[in-house]
Amino acid sequence: MKKILMLALCASAALASPLLAQARPEETARLRDAALTDTLAWDITEALTTEIGPRKAGSEAEARARDWAVTRLKGLGFANVRIELFDVPYWERGEASAEITAPYPQSLTLTALGNSAATPAKGLKAELIGFDSLAALEGADPAAIRGKIVFVTHRMAATQDGSHYGPVGQIRRIGPSIASKKGAVAILIRSIGTDAHRTPHTGSQDWKDGANPIPALALANPDADQLERVLKRGKPVTIALRVTAKMASKRPSGNVIAEVPGRDPTLPIVVVGGHLDSWDLGTGAIDDATGVAITTAAAKRIMDATQPLRTIRVVWFGSEEIGLFGGADYRERHGQEKHHFLAESDFGADKVWRFQTSVSDAALPAMKPIAAALAPLGIVQGGKNGDASGSDISEIQKLGVPVLALSQDGTRYFDLHHTPDDTLDKVDPVQLRQNVAAWTAMLSVAANDPTDYGPVPPRK
Amino acid sequence: MKKILMLALCASAALASPLLAQARPEETARLRDAALTDTLAWDITEALTTEIGPRKAGSEAEARARDWAVTRLKGLGFANVRIELFDVPYWERGEASAEITAPYPQSLTLTALGNSAATPAKGLKAELIGFDSLAALEGADPAAIRGKIVFVTHRMAATQDGSHYGPVGQIRRIGPSIASKKGAVAILIRSIGTDAHRTPHTGSQDWKDGANPIPALALANPDADQLERVLKRGKPVTIALRVTAKMASKRPSGNVIAEVPGRDPTLPIVVVGGHLDSWDLGTGAIDDATGVAITTAAAKRIMDATQPLRTIRVVWFGSEEIGLFGGADYRERHGQEKHHFLAESDFGADKVWRFQTSVSDAALPAMKPIAAALAPLGIVQGGKNGDASGSDISEIQKLGVPVLALSQDGTRYFDLHHTPDDTLDKVDPVQLRQNVAAWTAMLSVAANDPTDYGPVPPRK
Repeated sequence: MKKILMLALCASAALASPLLAQARPEETARLRDAALTDTLAWDITEALTTEIGPRKAGSEAEARARDWAVTRLKGLGFANVRIELFDVPYWERGEASAEITAPYPQSLTLTALGNSAATPAKGLKAELIGFDSLAALEGADPAAIRGKIVFVTHRMAATQDGSHYGPVGQIRRIGPSIASKKGAVAILIRSIGTDAHRTPHTGSQDWKDGANPIPALALANPDADQLERVLKRGKPVTIALRVTAKMASKRPSGNVIAEVPGRDPTLPIVVVGGHLDSWDLGTGAIDDATGVAITTAAAKRIMDATQPLRTIRVVWFGSEEIGLFGGADYRERHGQEKHHFLAESDFGADKVWRFQTSVSDAALPAMKPIAAALAPLGIVQGGKNGDASGSDISEIQKLGVPVLALSQDGTRYFDLHHTPDDTLDKVDPVQLRQNVAAWTAMLSVAANDPTDYGPVPPRK
Repeated sequence: MKKILMLALCASAALASPLLAQARPEETARLRDAALTDTLAWDITEALTTEIGPRKAGSEAEARARDWAVTRLKGLGFANVRIELFDVPYWERGEASAEITAPYPQSLTLTALGNSAATPAKGLKAELIGFDSLAALEGADPAAIRGKIVFVTHRMAATQDGSHYGPVGQIRRIGPSIASKKGAVAILIRSIGTDAHRTPHTGSQDWKDGANPIPALALANPDADQLERVLKRGKPVTIALRVTAKMASKRPSGNVIAEVPGRDPTLPIVVVGGHLDSWDLGTGAIDDATGVAITTAAAKRIMDATQPLRTIRVVWFGSEEIGLFGGADYRERHGQEKHHFLAESDFGADKVWRFQTSVSDAALPAMKPIAAALAPLGIVQGGKNGDASGSDISEIQKLGVPVLALSQDGTRYFDLHHTPDDTLDKVDPVQLRQNVAAWTAMLSVAANDPTDYGPVPPRK
């Protein structure tokens, strides 16, 4: 009998996850479908973008947003609501203007990239040299560039999975350093974006390998078109630039954390969230008010149903845009805690179409009930195990922590990303609710699943 | 025999127009269909928006555009190419910035309206009072407005015929004067436009009935949405404004004129055109590079075929945007000449869908061959006789001159109108060619038609 009991216990342990998970499909379906009428995610998105608006990393507005978040999260009934502060470098955008002075005088619309240097106070004027790719800039003779303003253009395609952002975004991330090292006095890039509006896309870049900071700016796409046409006429092109951007002293930023305590506090916890900071040009609606709103609304729905098995920690990361500082601080403080998995929403709020995983092979069967719960929302399991990641959570993921991901349709994301146009009107309330339903379904299964999703190998 | 001859002559005279016009349908169809492969309208639009770019009324850029136009029109083989200069009042946009200082500090995107006054150099700060219509502002007690910044919001619908622009545009045209007379220190209006971008719509307005100039600005539509949401929260809203706009001394503007001499110079002439000036925010692609390009390309096609019966005069009007000064100057100089009809293209370059007339009742039969020539392009004759008008040509139309009109689809016109987004990429080359074909067909019939289209009664 003892032996039989042991066998039964072993069988029970082996099957625990699927059995338990499969015991919840009705509850999960109920919670998921109820979430399709969610109003909380909209309320959070509307209120954060209206009452705070832009909330640049390290700014006073981001500090107000943290306080706002604490009040809001406490009001919603979350436990252990707190701020974890850290310091970040602070770059001031200042003002930027540019004009073609020859051969066809006219002004251009642009915005500084993160960490851009200023021009001299009176501005600078120099001849323009154009490149149609980062490779062309990389291959160029420094003698042709020295003393000139570099212009790098390119084409970014709108894709469902945003897959062009990685490679095309390199123009922004490393183009300025390359131009500087070759002796350029400034660099203008075509915005890393897919729209055709006079709303340039800012974004982060660092001065690499000791590159001397120079003015680095993104032209709105119609202005990049214009500059291409002007260059094609074959006459020397002169540009006058004036930029007042500057690095300032460090400022406080922080993560806001809230929890839904689980029934078994000894089990590894679930972390979900998005980032609270935004670029300063828009009000950070799709990037990333909706991310914190969706994940918070889903966690709230789980909290208000039955107490979950595992603790769910909701993190509103700070200072994502300027270099994942919130994610790094979270890793530093919480890297030794046991995490069941992490998941981040930071790709707008259009319809979730794909579920991805980065879990152990042994945990793959446990993904099936999640996929099954998501399927009625039109979500497919896609990619290969190991593809799931996230922006802030990529920092802790390096330590070897499982990650799940729900991919939004990114077809129009890069029309808006990092532009003044990232405003509330761009959020579709119907698709937003589908997001909440997807996250609710995923949490309903996964936060109640005793199966380990790890270990997964550390990443670089 | 003499009597019979007389009768024959009378019959011939009475039937001349339909007979002659109907003698041309094959030639007209050939010219129309060839115009569907036109490249000239695109070339003019591309070159004017690239090599000149923004060309504000009275500016140095508008002067460069006139010289550019003369060179271009001469190069195309037009006769009597010349500039007719006149002076216009000159308003400098300067810079404008605004922020909500309470209860939710954040900046707003806006632009000054024509003839806006400046704020004091340090800016001004005042409480905001909101109105959801011009009627609400008109009905408001001045005591509630005095010392405050007025905000007027509204909704403009996108329509094929642009019919909302008349009534909704009144908010821009007379709202500032009303606010000023009631003691407002400044006025912010929701942009007169149908887009959802951070690209505010400028436009003209005059200080009426001795209204004292105040800062008058248009918010981008997402910013108007934001301000509505902020006001709805019921807390006092304070706005800080800084505007450096100012009136300067008068400057030269002018019309550029070119002609296709007709076989019979004694006959009343045909006038077609658009306006050369643009607002300063965009490059004036749809407003109105395409207008001058379409009409010039069509006239060039007629010129290159058979010499037309009547002289065709192409006018690139100056200073339309700031108050139809080019049209007024044309009326003053040419009002006593005999005009067969006038027609203007100033509503973008999306597909022409409608043909309208303002001719004598006796000339209505002569409209049939025009309508027949347009029908294969998907163009219907619409509205009632008397509806046809145009912006610059409305000035001479007041004297009692026939007008024909080809209406473009305006559904997206007010997304772009008077914004930074009025750039070349918004022009669809395929629809542009349909425009050229429509104008070519109309000119082929009407410039060869001996029938009088007038007299029509003078207008106010």
